[in-house]
Amino acid sequence: MSIVKAYGTHSPKADLLQMTIERRAILPKDVKVKITYSGICHSDIHTARNDWKGSKYPVVPGHEIVGEVVEVGAEVTRFKVGDTVGVGVLVDSCKDCRSCNKDLEQFCLNGATFTYNSHDPHLGTQTYGGYSETIVVDEHFVLQVPDNLNPAGVAPLLCAGITTYSPLAHWKAEPGKKVGVIGLGGLGHMGIKFSHAMGAETIMITRSPGKGEDAKALGADGVLISTDHEAVKAHMGTFDILLNTIPVAHEMDPYLALLAVDGIMIMVGAIEPLKPFHGGSIIGGRKTIAGSMIGGLKETQEMLDFCGQHNIVSDIELIQMQEVNQAYERVIKGDVKYRFVIDMDSLRNT
Amino acid sequence: MSIVKAYGTHSPKADLLQMTIERRAILPKDVKVKITYSGICHSDIHTARNDWKGSKYPVVPGHEIVGEVVEVGAEVTRFKVGDTVGVGVLVDSCKDCRSCNKDLEQFCLNGATFTYNSHDPHLGTQTYGGYSETIVVDEHFVLQVPDNLNPAGVAPLLCAGITTYSPLAHWKAEPGKKVGVIGLGGLGHMGIKFSHAMGAETIMITRSPGKGEDAKALGADGVLISTDHEAVKAHMGTFDILLNTIPVAHEMDPYLALLAVDGIMIMVGAIEPLKPFHGGSIIGGRKTIAGSMIGGLKETQEMLDFCGQHNIVSDIELIQMQEVNQAYERVIKGDVKYRFVIDMDSLRNT
Repeated sequence: MSIVKAYGTHSPKADLLQMTIERRAILPKDVKVKITYSGICHSDIHTARNDWKGSKYPVVPGHEIVGEVVEVGAEVTRFKVGDTVGVGVLVDSCKDCRSCNKDLEQFCLNGATFTYNSHDPHLGTQTYGGYSETIVVDEHFVLQVPDNLNPAGVAPLLCAGITTYSPLAHWKAEPGKKVGVIGLGGLGHMGIKFSHAMGAETIMITRSPGKGEDAKALGADGVLISTDHEAVKAHMGTFDILLNTIPVAHEMDPYLALLAVDGIMIMVGAIEPLKPFHGGSIIGGRKTIAGSMIGGLKETQEMLDFCGQHNIVSDIELIQMQEVNQAYERVIKGDVKYRFVIDMDSLRNT
Repeated sequence: MSIVKAYGTHSPKADLLQMTIERRAILPKDVKVKITYSGICHSDIHTARNDWKGSKYPVVPGHEIVGEVVEVGAEVTRFKVGDTVGVGVLVDSCKDCRSCNKDLEQFCLNGATFTYNSHDPHLGTQTYGGYSETIVVDEHFVLQVPDNLNPAGVAPLLCAGITTYSPLAHWKAEPGKKVGVIGLGGLGHMGIKFSHAMGAETIMITRSPGKGEDAKALGADGVLISTDHEAVKAHMGTFDILLNTIPVAHEMDPYLALLAVDGIMIMVGAIEPLKPFHGGSIIGGRKTIAGSMIGGLKETQEMLDFCGQHNIVSDIELIQMQEVNQAYERVIKGDVKYRFVIDMDSLRNT
């Protein structure tokens, strides 16, 4: 066991501040990672502030982790000291249920262990996330980071990346298909990059006319301003896939009207009670509304390899650990292009 | 052109009564059908009473039609005089759009012509449905009825049947899968028969304990009483497919909780604003909510052939045309097992 520095909070009302946490001594299959970069995900804020209830304190957020392997257990086969690796939203699962056996650890039927604010079966505490100097993780939940990618930009791939890659891969964004990405934030900007790289015609759908040029720079073939009724009319019934990254409840029917026959709208952002939609909006056209949540470990590695091949990372703003509270406020205002990543040396060196 | 007797209404507030309507003279590809049986679908009532708005009067309902071919146009190839045939919800479509080219005429991008209360491009009036002596239909929209089936019981297959067969076939109800059929009415009782015949483990889900024995007689392997919390708990996370036939808005989250990872709930009953559900109910398990509406002509013929092979018809109560208004009241109360079918000789012989 070791005591390491971290940033966290003891209360939903309080700012994050420096504290210490325990990390377990490595077990035979464990990898110890010196964390170099940690992305800020909106879920971090929801958990720190107990928006979803169920937070147990102290909360140390962070599930977009990149670092360097500094120690490996005796039975570790996939990693060696010095490797650049990633850790995402999951750090453990039962490895033996129907979901785990299908490489869908995120839906482990016995309850996956999330990277923070999950019961830690080893220490008996809560798990503590990536806003810390190191983390110790079973190698099954550690990812190889392609050498050619900027590691700071890789950090958000571990949550925002896989959250958008997984549904686009599962429901087959590909040449000949038209994909709409709704909302241009941390998730949306990755959705555009992936859909474009997968070869689909990619349309950014946003309420903000100002986001059009940014979206095109990210790879969008076109932009649909959802308040422009004529433009919306022209796109009605044409989308095969809508990747809906809006983080809050919103009217569903106008988006469902954009779907082609057999089209699908995938919800990845709004984890709250949604607004009602009309049965006719899906019955007339055999349309589908689906949910998707991160991805399994195998698929997350595929995503990172895909990023290596296509030279994809997240667009980020690098900050110091001590700036995290201001960064949270800016995330809430949508004032970041498109993801904050913390340079973890700023914690280590204080 | 011919004048035939029919039953319809001139106002949303009035009972149905006998009237006369025009049928077109047959065109080269037309089939003239002497209607022998006409099922009563809940949509008939919604349209007669203008529940969905948009009804134009007079309304002559009826889109579950079985009859005998009495005349064929010069270019008709698939039918001859004397054939027992069916006509369902569609009587025309553009035959040339992306949907029609995929045998999905029900989603014709140029607007399919429905069997009643649709613009009739031939006569310039509304289309008039099956509560009438005869109907004239393009042969593409006419179905062959297998000889071994009771024609009265076949009538509801043309709407209730295909409405439940199509999604179960499309999303592959089959051995090894667990299918829940929610609601035991005209649609639900067909859903049980089809799911069972397709080889899926079939569970009837109902609020009414009294319906359990009936469901088993129809082919259900089990019954889940949705108000029995312990029983519900035991089934949570286990269904691959839920066929939701509830005709009105209802709480969605409790049903979504029954779905397994990658499970799908298909809405076929409620064509109205639905109640909101929680984003987490689909995101946690990559679950899907889909809509489905009847089926294309090719699939409708497949369904009838499947029924012939498996000896499946609807369970019906046969009535006289003159009893239609009382039957409507009983449909609204759910007081029918499971579909009223009108013996159309009762109209012809008055």
